[in-house]
Amino acid sequence: MTALNAIMGAAKPGMLYGIGVGPGDASLLTLRAAGLIQTVDVLSYFAKEGHESTARQIARPLIAPGQEELPLYYPLTTEAPVSGPRYQQEIRDFYEEAAGSLSRLLTQGKSVGLLAEGDPFFYGSFMHMWRRLAADFPIEIVPGVIGISGCCSRANAPLTWGDDVLTVLPGTLDEAVLVRRLSDADAAVIMKVGRNFAKVRRAISAAGLMDRAIYVERGTMPGEKIERLADVLDETAPYFSMILIPGQGRRL
Amino acid sequence: MTALNAIMGAAKPGMLYGIGVGPGDASLLTLRAAGLIQTVDVLSYFAKEGHESTARQIARPLIAPGQEELPLYYPLTTEAPVSGPRYQQEIRDFYEEAAGSLSRLLTQGKSVGLLAEGDPFFYGSFMHMWRRLAADFPIEIVPGVIGISGCCSRANAPLTWGDDVLTVLPGTLDEAVLVRRLSDADAAVIMKVGRNFAKVRRAISAAGLMDRAIYVERGTMPGEKIERLADVLDETAPYFSMILIPGQGRRL
Repeated sequence: MTALNAIMGAAKPGMLYGIGVGPGDASLLTLRAAGLIQTVDVLSYFAKEGHESTARQIARPLIAPGQEELPLYYPLTTEAPVSGPRYQQEIRDFYEEAAGSLSRLLTQGKSVGLLAEGDPFFYGSFMHMWRRLAADFPIEIVPGVIGISGCCSRANAPLTWGDDVLTVLPGTLDEAVLVRRLSDADAAVIMKVGRNFAKVRRAISAAGLMDRAIYVERGTMPGEKIERLADVLDETAPYFSMILIPGQGRRL
Repeated sequence: MTALNAIMGAAKPGMLYGIGVGPGDASLLTLRAAGLIQTVDVLSYFAKEGHESTARQIARPLIAPGQEELPLYYPLTTEAPVSGPRYQQEIRDFYEEAAGSLSRLLTQGKSVGLLAEGDPFFYGSFMHMWRRLAADFPIEIVPGVIGISGCCSRANAPLTWGDDVLTVLPGTLDEAVLVRRLSDADAAVIMKVGRNFAKVRRAISAAGLMDRAIYVERGTMPGEKIERLADVLDETAPYFSMILIPGQGRRL
């Protein structure tokens, strides 16, 4: 166990840590993430007001009672369109303020761990903090298991074989773009399905991929649901859902 | 620490574990991977004869002295073209034999952990074992941090922002295919660079992406090297190298 502690390491004063917490199951935290969650002065995370942050939920078994925490509450999530001026302005102001709060803690010499679902550099809010703070503070990025890997493991679906090209698509894209990209894909993953579910489904069908598509909801988390997409009849899906289209490359 | 042990769990008799060991640094093993490496009856891994398996090297700090091990030695790696009949036949025979060896151990009721660099379901030899054994034995897939995430964290390069589409390309593809795919990419990663380096470089240049391309060799491992691709003058690269082209999506 001493060897394990040495590998996990500890947090250093005045450092910001972008900690990937993986896809959902606490056992899929890295040793480094676990070491930092147990030793940072302040643990921070993004959340929707009135809800526990998913990243915090994942890390919960490792958080000591009395841990100092700094929740960063989004002013809005799905109340306004992402591309509209209201969302953009409110989120930008919020990120500025959040970066200010983190910056004050770091200036006091505290170590701060900012949790990120999956991996911090893969579609994460953490990157908006990194962008604002990297010039002024030392930052360590702790990569995490991406949700895609967690979902593939649970769905028993090897993703890429041999020379397969993998295309990762946000479900927020236009339907025509989704169809075009999917038609050209060897292996594909559609993230950010949620309220884009009906559109994504039509695009997969139009690209002739319905037979290969697997729907995964809350992969590796409590309430996990895995089905052939063809069997899912709902019109919407929760935020933590994705669709996997495994590749068919070289089998040896 | 007891809490930690409970999260890490232990291996069960007669189970095969496909254990992703992450990108290279032992601290990027997951808690589950660490728990299994310390408790399986037999630890197995693919390797080139006469070389230590990279996956074993990554896990080494956690392997107890006297651990029973089963190295699986490739009969050839780069001596013959992957698409040629010799490679295909020899590798297929080798996979059959390797699956037979694992199957014998599992039938004896032993738990076996087969290590995989990165994630077991993302371009891994493990999948060729899974394909042969999944019908007959219980298998747990332990997802791991992919090399891409490890490299992005070290290169200080957030990979995908907002609605970026990510394209992951094996460097083994034809030059024209690489150029076409890269020209259509928001964010891209080229894996399996190695002896394809000169071709990959030309393709990136043709797609107008040279300015954004980052070369990462042995990311998170000893001997790590990170440079702007434009500054790398070599004609070949080692197996554990990749090229990152970070996305330029929505910054808020």
